[in-house]
Amino acid sequence: MELSKGIQTFIQTSRVARMATVDADGCPHIVPICYAYDGSRLYSAVDKKPKRVEANLLRRLVNIRANPRICVIIDEYDEDWSRLRFIIIHGIAAIEPEGTEHSRAVNLLRKKYPQYQAMNLAEGVNPVIAITPTKVVSWGTFE
Amino acid sequence: MELSKGIQTFIQTSRVARMATVDADGCPHIVPICYAYDGSRLYSAVDKKPKRVEANLLRRLVNIRANPRICVIIDEYDEDWSRLRFIIIHGIAAIEPEGTEHSRAVNLLRKKYPQYQAMNLAEGVNPVIAITPTKVVSWGTFE
Repeated sequence: MELSKGIQTFIQTSRVARMATVDADGCPHIVPICYAYDGSRLYSAVDKKPKRVEANLLRRLVNIRANPRICVIIDEYDEDWSRLRFIIIHGIAAIEPEGTEHSRAVNLLRKKYPQYQAMNLAEGVNPVIAITPTKVVSWGTFE
Repeated sequence: MELSKGIQTFIQTSRVARMATVDADGCPHIVPICYAYDGSRLYSAVDKKPKRVEANLLRRLVNIRANPRICVIIDEYDEDWSRLRFIIIHGIAAIEPEGTEHSRAVNLLRKKYPQYQAMNLAEGVNPVIAITPTKVVSWGTFE
């Protein structure tokens, strides 16, 4: 997928996104995510930020197993509404509990977020969500 | 629904939320929304911020007509991850193109956002989305 340099940079440098998943009954769920972008896929980890249930029962993972279609938004709010901008990424999510893709994602996440350097992101314990964009829509100006 | 004072204040004062809707095929969509909260429902207007299509064909409205179940997240990102907090609102959305509910929503939105005072939010042209929460989940500290 061809994205402009400005949009690529915006995706790479933004610190937080919000991801929607959908359960088997068509009910949506949103969570804020930290993510890394390698130029083609987005990666997010099920990390140690406190969660109420064990990783595999997390709503986002249960939903992705039932329906891998997700939507991610990366946006900036500004009180000057002429400066609002956002990128909506429609995509397919895959759960990577371990292996090469898991390790690569963890490395990318640690590079972007110093917070992850002291945090265990272990194979089999902290699955990674890998998102392949299928459609990207942008609004606003991305230099 | 009983929400703590801290959570009520957070919902009332936050400036932006993100709303997920789902289409008839189970595909999610997210948009950033400005909203007003009257203590029981959230209101968002389809306003004049530039859109690619006429109001009634907007994805969020098409989706809500097919499936009124929505999810709204209001969160704050912080590089100190111990300060992260969010509120997830599951709810049912109704489209109010005109009438009392429309006028009430417009008044609330104009009170919260000075930007709306100079913007036309007309009955029949700028529908309002009224969200009735069915479940609210919070994470983090809300004083």
